[in-house]
Amino acid sequence: MLGVCYYPEHWPKERWKEDAQRMRALGLSYVRVGEFAWALLEPEPGRYAWDWLDEALETLAQEGLKVVLGTPTATPPKWLVDRHPEILPVDREGRRRRFGGRRHYCFSSPVYREETARIVRLLAERYASHPAVVGFQTDNEYGCHDTVRCYCPRCREAFQAWLEARYQEVEALNRAWGTAFWSQRYRSFREVDLPHLTVAEPNPSHLLDYYRFASDQVRAYNRLQVDLLRAHAPGKFITHNFMGFFTDLDPFALAEDLDFASWDSYPLGFTELMPLPEEERRLYARTGHPDVAAFHHDLYRAVGRGRFWVMEQQPGPVNWAPHNPSPAPGMVRLWTWEALAHGAEVVSYFRFRQVPFAQEQMHAGLHLPDGTPDRGAEEARRVAEELARLALPPLEPAPVALVYDPEAAWVYEIQPQGAGWRYLELVYAFYSGLRRLGLDVDVRPPGAPLEGYALVVVPSLPILRPEALEAFQKARGLVLFGPRTGSKTEHFQIPPDLPPGPLQALLPLRVVRVESLPPSLEEVAEGPLGRFALGVWREWVEGRAEPLLRFADGWGALFREGRRFYLAAWPSPDLLAALLPWLAREAGLKPLPLPGGLRLRRRGRWTFAFNYGPEEAEAPAPREARFLLGARRLPPYEVALWEEA
Amino acid sequence: MLGVCYYPEHWPKERWKEDAQRMRALGLSYVRVGEFAWALLEPEPGRYAWDWLDEALETLAQEGLKVVLGTPTATPPKWLVDRHPEILPVDREGRRRRFGGRRHYCFSSPVYREETARIVRLLAERYASHPAVVGFQTDNEYGCHDTVRCYCPRCREAFQAWLEARYQEVEALNRAWGTAFWSQRYRSFREVDLPHLTVAEPNPSHLLDYYRFASDQVRAYNRLQVDLLRAHAPGKFITHNFMGFFTDLDPFALAEDLDFASWDSYPLGFTELMPLPEEERRLYARTGHPDVAAFHHDLYRAVGRGRFWVMEQQPGPVNWAPHNPSPAPGMVRLWTWEALAHGAEVVSYFRFRQVPFAQEQMHAGLHLPDGTPDRGAEEARRVAEELARLALPPLEPAPVALVYDPEAAWVYEIQPQGAGWRYLELVYAFYSGLRRLGLDVDVRPPGAPLEGYALVVVPSLPILRPEALEAFQKARGLVLFGPRTGSKTEHFQIPPDLPPGPLQALLPLRVVRVESLPPSLEEVAEGPLGRFALGVWREWVEGRAEPLLRFADGWGALFREGRRFYLAAWPSPDLLAALLPWLAREAGLKPLPLPGGLRLRRRGRWTFAFNYGPEEAEAPAPREARFLLGARRLPPYEVALWEEA
Amino acid sequence: MLGVCYYPEHWPKERWKEDAQRMRALGLSYVRVGEFAWALLEPEPGRYAWDWLDEALETLAQEGLKVVLGTPTATPPKWLVDRHPEILPVDREGRRRRFGGRRHYCFSSPVYREETARIVRLLAERYASHPAVVGFQTDNEYGCHDTVRCYCPRCREAFQAWLEARYQEVEALNRAWGTAFWSQRYRSFREVDLPHLTVAEPNPSHLLDYYRFASDQVRAYNRLQVDLLRAHAPGKFITHNFMGFFTDLDPFALAEDLDFASWDSYPLGFTELMPLPEEERRLYARTGHPDVAAFHHDLYRAVGRGRFWVMEQQPGPVNWAPHNPSPAPGMVRLWTWEALAHGAEVVSYFRFRQVPFAQEQMHAGLHLPDGTPDRGAEEARRVAEELARLALPPLEPAPVALVYDPEAAWVYEIQPQGAGWRYLELVYAFYSGLRRLGLDVDVRPPGAPLEGYALVVVPSLPILRPEALEAFQKARGLVLFGPRTGSKTEHFQIPPDLPPGPLQALLPLRVVRVESLPPSLEEVAEGPLGRFALGVWREWVEGRAEPLLRFADGWGALFREGRRFYLAAWPSPDLLAALLPWLAREAGLKPLPLPGGLRLRRRGRWTFAFNYGPEEAEAPAPREARFLLGARRLPPYEVALWEEA
Ligand SMILES: [Mg+2]
Ligand SMILES: [Mg+2]
Ligand SMILES: [Mg+2]
Ligand SMILES: [Zn+2]
Ligand SMILES: [Zn+2]
Ligand SMILES: [Zn+2]
Repeated sequence: MLGVCYYPEHWPKERWKEDAQRMRALGLSYVRVGEFAWALLEPEPGRYAWDWLDEALETLAQEGLKVVLGTPTATPPKWLVDRHPEILPVDREGRRRRFGGRRHYCFSSPVYREETARIVRLLAERYASHPAVVGFQTDNEYGCHDTVRCYCPRCREAFQAWLEARYQEVEALNRAWGTAFWSQRYRSFREVDLPHLTVAEPNPSHLLDYYRFASDQVRAYNRLQVDLLRAHAPGKFITHNFMGFFTDLDPFALAEDLDFASWDSYPLGFTELMPLPEEERRLYARTGHPDVAAFHHDLYRAVGRGRFWVMEQQPGPVNWAPHNPSPAPGMVRLWTWEALAHGAEVVSYFRFRQVPFAQEQMHAGLHLPDGTPDRGAEEARRVAEELARLALPPLEPAPVALVYDPEAAWVYEIQPQGAGWRYLELVYAFYSGLRRLGLDVDVRPPGAPLEGYALVVVPSLPILRPEALEAFQKARGLVLFGPRTGSKTEHFQIPPDLPPGPLQALLPLRVVRVESLPPSLEEVAEGPLGRFALGVWREWVEGRAEPLLRFADGWGALFREGRRFYLAAWPSPDLLAALLPWLAREAGLKPLPLPGGLRLRRRGRWTFAFNYGPEEAEAPAPREARFLLGARRLPPYEVALWEEA
Repeated sequence: MLGVCYYPEHWPKERWKEDAQRMRALGLSYVRVGEFAWALLEPEPGRYAWDWLDEALETLAQEGLKVVLGTPTATPPKWLVDRHPEILPVDREGRRRRFGGRRHYCFSSPVYREETARIVRLLAERYASHPAVVGFQTDNEYGCHDTVRCYCPRCREAFQAWLEARYQEVEALNRAWGTAFWSQRYRSFREVDLPHLTVAEPNPSHLLDYYRFASDQVRAYNRLQVDLLRAHAPGKFITHNFMGFFTDLDPFALAEDLDFASWDSYPLGFTELMPLPEEERRLYARTGHPDVAAFHHDLYRAVGRGRFWVMEQQPGPVNWAPHNPSPAPGMVRLWTWEALAHGAEVVSYFRFRQVPFAQEQMHAGLHLPDGTPDRGAEEARRVAEELARLALPPLEPAPVALVYDPEAAWVYEIQPQGAGWRYLELVYAFYSGLRRLGLDVDVRPPGAPLEGYALVVVPSLPILRPEALEAFQKARGLVLFGPRTGSKTEHFQIPPDLPPGPLQALLPLRVVRVESLPPSLEEVAEGPLGRFALGVWREWVEGRAEPLLRFADGWGALFREGRRFYLAAWPSPDLLAALLPWLAREAGLKPLPLPGGLRLRRRGRWTFAFNYGPEEAEAPAPREARFLLGARRLPPYEVALWEEA
Repeated sequence: MLGVCYYPEHWPKERWKEDAQRMRALGLSYVRVGEFAWALLEPEPGRYAWDWLDEALETLAQEGLKVVLGTPTATPPKWLVDRHPEILPVDREGRRRRFGGRRHYCFSSPVYREETARIVRLLAERYASHPAVVGFQTDNEYGCHDTVRCYCPRCREAFQAWLEARYQEVEALNRAWGTAFWSQRYRSFREVDLPHLTVAEPNPSHLLDYYRFASDQVRAYNRLQVDLLRAHAPGKFITHNFMGFFTDLDPFALAEDLDFASWDSYPLGFTELMPLPEEERRLYARTGHPDVAAFHHDLYRAVGRGRFWVMEQQPGPVNWAPHNPSPAPGMVRLWTWEALAHGAEVVSYFRFRQVPFAQEQMHAGLHLPDGTPDRGAEEARRVAEELARLALPPLEPAPVALVYDPEAAWVYEIQPQGAGWRYLELVYAFYSGLRRLGLDVDVRPPGAPLEGYALVVVPSLPILRPEALEAFQKARGLVLFGPRTGSKTEHFQIPPDLPPGPLQALLPLRVVRVESLPPSLEEVAEGPLGRFALGVWREWVEGRAEPLLRFADGWGALFREGRRFYLAAWPSPDLLAALLPWLAREAGLKPLPLPGGLRLRRRGRWTFAFNYGPEEAEAPAPREARFLLGARRLPPYEVALWEEA
């Protein structure tokens, strides 16, 4: 199904009816409304103005549209900020941040939690029985604009309480953090500061606990909203729109309180921000890198425990990246089908109409500011039409699992140990490498069951908890562990038996040295798979087994112990291109290296093909395949869909 | 005429006589004095020490030198700052800036305005009838060191009052800024903050009004000084020395209160700060880019309504650029003649003698710190000698007008929408392109009459006010409008009828999409003028007429409607090199593409040629031309001047 | 002798005995202990816990190990900071820095000086008669984490008092700083602020005095500790561990109060931070640049008036550089021998055992966190064994002196006048150039006697005091002065008789112009030594003598007057490669250009050779040389030592 984000408060009432009719005409089913409207719903403290929203919902309902109502808490009004300036967050530099943008609140603020409870309860009560309102979105893009981590006095108190709950005794904290080092010892939880503006870098355990705390605070804040919505508007679904390439927050934890996950998909903006070779940057500037949207679909499907929406889908050029090119013709449709192929229940465009004022005036919509359709509208309409005549089969589990851990991102943000080590880049390299082989991938958080997968890839999992270890133990397929897996304890210490710590139960290895490499330096590793120049990271690993790859000095680079593999280096693109298909074949899969920008995704016996490249591509469909969309030869930016016989 | 900046307070009295004699011997006529001397004129609060200045002026007068007296307000003394710390400005990061450099005051400070009024009035009264004092310079380089925009409580109050005066009703502000977006609605002007330290970026309308306010505050502050000077020292001229490549301030508005404009010309320092291809950077490191000084002469001649001085002329290496090379031999003379060719009434060197102490000790003067002449002195003397035997004809209007708008710089600073979009760079590219054709250019602010010009170039004018539209309507020559012209309303909104908004009255176009391009991406446009790879910016424009250039997808890149042209892209150097001569010829002009670093400027029937390049060049003089300076063959860094028969 | 840094407080007591035994087994003689242990020695205010340290020292003593006890003042406990938050330093941005790392104190804080005196006196008293404690290290790495310069109110007061002591009368300060410029005049010392957050850059004399003050404060703080240690623990040596490539502090002055100097040698980390051509960066990533350790050995030998230790020697990969590669096998031994060859009395590895927690958990030790030996342990053991059978002859004075001045670093930090001018880079270029010729070098502070040297190299000495001038006058060898020597007075002014100021007594030159060059620009100089393209810096120098090198415009680039030379430009590598051997031969020395990464160092008639390169190299030993270590052909990373017949 398709949807759209709509802001009736930006347009004259007279326009609403026509807009709603046009939504229906385009084939849209859902409309997200209201998530930034607090100042218009409560223009003065305690004086509410629900009428306009009532009327807007009514207008949408008359056209048969279903409404997702956003709680307006991402934008407290100025009067609220002026009454309670302590709700404003404090940045890492110790500066109080200010009103005038959005997300200007601290998740720990007791006052803001009260105000939140008040407006959310009222909203829930008012629309609890509205037939068009089918669900709620809590707030909007938690954490955007670097807001997960706040350094205000309220956060300091809350952090101390969080530590006390975690450690009970301050001596436990002292042991966990290793405060014997540099005289960091605390005599009570009340002595612990927030980890910023320190003279030398803060203690990494201190930072990690603070990052966990900050993520927990967002979850608690969201839970407050969820509880009120469930209590006062029972029967409606609740979701939240997460962001791309964002790790300050643990979405798996937060989504436990939601009915399903949503995310906001801006492939061109994300691609602008990715570290890419110049040639790929040029090639995919107008399409997005071919795996950017897919990775997040797979991630947020996992976050949503199998269910997700794309709550915001890029409909044209955006306004917030360093450069904002126009999508290639066809890409709005292609992105939509990619989302549906990955199991999105709804793809909702952001936004119905480009707003001519304020911060986002240069962000395209399905319509121009004057109301005439922009290109995206036609592409959306075409998908709606296609979708209407297709009954998509349900998604089946993928043959490959990729284990992804937000906590790993925090660990490496805190101590990369080498400027080239970036967790998301490593994860994406593995994901993209698998997808270039035509393999479908399920993202799994650590600890999730892995029995069903022929191949499990763990790019790196520094903190390996018992439940994750058990899942790896029970995995029946091949499991590849990347570098630094098992290299830290729960408290950010080196394991007593050295890395890979608990993984030694599965792989009898002992990492006796690691190094990070400057860009000018590479180490050559060689073996039956080929010869590879590896940079960024290397380990020296003691183990019994004959390594599959060896460095020039004789130490192993890739180890195998039965079904388990350990990679003791940062993988280069050519190593991945050799290793992953070999592994897939060892796992009994049929990898299918795809040319250029071609990608596949299956739903049951249906296979989608997407051509992100500027050249025509041939779909690897069986001869007898029946094409439901497109054809065997895919022009640039085209979609094909076939059913296997 | 020539002049010099002199600081008697830096030297022993015994030296003054000799210095003044040497000024006369060099052929200098004017001396600027006093603009940083407050602490020496008022060493204790209320205790004045005029004697030394009296004596210094007397010494200069004895040698027949005319004096421009600077008001000393750029440098309030320490005692004043300690008594009134609230006059110190606050930077964008919220930090109170401190005493120890210069310009350490806030333009909105009521206390500082009082103190300013006191010292300016006393200065005016004391020298009102001094025969050598011919005029005043207010303050010094308003805005230097990022001082136009201050974020102190006084500025907040003043901004609120400014907004109230502008909008009358807060609802008008809410509409103008589009505060329905992100719950930014204000209930009163008192609620409006200064736009900084916000969590997400501030509202662009908010920023633009704040930039306007800040520029207005400088004008009001200057007006305070002007009014006092006119009241207490009638009959003297008043000017201010503006800066190069500086847009925080609207010089056109401020100069309405002055008798003429001045500016400070440092071609090498400015060139160091310009984004240039490496080859041009190397080529012009010792000469300045050939159009840098000329552009500013033309700009400040417009600002001064036809009258301008160069108040500070670089005489050797400076101290403030990242690298400070020595000018090529001859450049001090060449720069001086370039200024005179563009109509400068006086060119005044900065400074007479290199000061051996404090911040600017590495800034060359006409003399070394020990008083012996430096190279610049000899070159200045030569110009004085040459000038003495030439009666320069008056400047005539140029055939080409370039429309320049400081507000456009603000708009694009606030929302570039693409990292490559820089207004000054676009303006300079057009200006330089015209000058490489040997064409003289008048800079015109939007709204100035354009009837007399054969060709009008508007690099980009996002906010197109009625008076500007009318001037374009009345223009009898060809008019070329650059990209994004008419793309914003007065309040920083997209026009209801889409860009180019009001320009549609002249050019029936409709911009339905724009994009900014990363450096790796270019769009090819082709037509009778040639084939061009265009980057940075592209628009999709609907229009009736056949475009002169088309992008590969068929959309137009350059449109013509009678005498008017619209360019829907950022011009590449090769596009400008093809388009501008063609346009000039269409306009009935005779463009003369000049080799390398050669440039021309006319005063009546006299033509100047300047060779900025390292190779000999030939002046394009008619065979029968009579050479008044130099000769047909110009060695590097040489000047020629001829009269047409 | 060899030593090691050990932190008993990081390990269970049960482990201490085994560790101590292992130290002895490795051949180590010294152990540094205690320098970060305040919170463990005084866990509550006034409650002391000496027992564990007593026991640790006893355990070490039992194995015959000698102990260097660190005063724990680099890490005041949290309770102390909470009681006296005013001890926290304030950074240049005006932000109070916080607890959580180390060095979180201000050197000027009266309270912190009291607390320091208390803990240091107690420590001294307790271990005054401990037989194993042979000496003390004061604090740790003064100035690390940018802590020399603090901007707190206490520092402001102390700076004012320092100024008053220096200038007596405020008018003397006004003259010295040239406060006539920009109305900077002060009426009393109480008016002077710390030089930061100014609107324009601060006065350079103000900055220089503040940098001197800040360095003096560290010395005074250290002196407080030294006096207490000498009073309460007489007969023990006192040292401090200085850092590499660090100039905020004048180590010569501070070390006057010490018995000898120490420094912390991390060749790979330092090399990561050096500006190097990409090829050298790659070549030396695992060895350190071949002159990095040697330069600091020579520097700190001078600082220690002939005596120095390496208190911390890198034993494997570190954790704090942007990238942290593993040293090439053999380098730990090579670095140790390089230190010993340069006269180090003790080389002490940092640390005995990698700590598995807190900030430095990724910093290698001689042992892994689980206690098993890491590679460094074996290399250290080998050196100990070799050392045991060799009686090193005493170091003799080198034939070449390099004059190095921390104050020069401050001057050029304050006014580089060109972004490419970096003092340490210039010094290092000369040092490395000499060492590539196989020449031993003594580093000398300005003013130290130079009579004994055949060649004296002064890379640049802007402030040339009488005692330094006298030393140059008395020098009997050749003296080469680099650019900008003599260019500033004691008060950061241009000398009245122009640069090189007082040096004109020795070299009749007059610098009439200088320039800094952007990277794109070079000036060619030519003469009998060759033809060189010179960038970064050029001077125009008037002088009588025929220059040895001339720029293309005829001005001299290199001057000679008898035994003295003046270089009027920044030297390029090829100029140094031509000039230095020629100079050395003129000085009667026998320069021996060495291939690649080969380096030499002599102790009496013994010559060491070190191969930093990846290729085998041949030691330039006389045919009859007797090899005491290694052999004539040096494999990569190997050491050779021979005695001349
Ligand atoms: Mg969004
Ligand atoms: Mg100036
Ligand atoms: Mg250290
Ligand atoms: Zn907070
Ligand atoms: Zn202000
Ligand atoms: Zn301080």
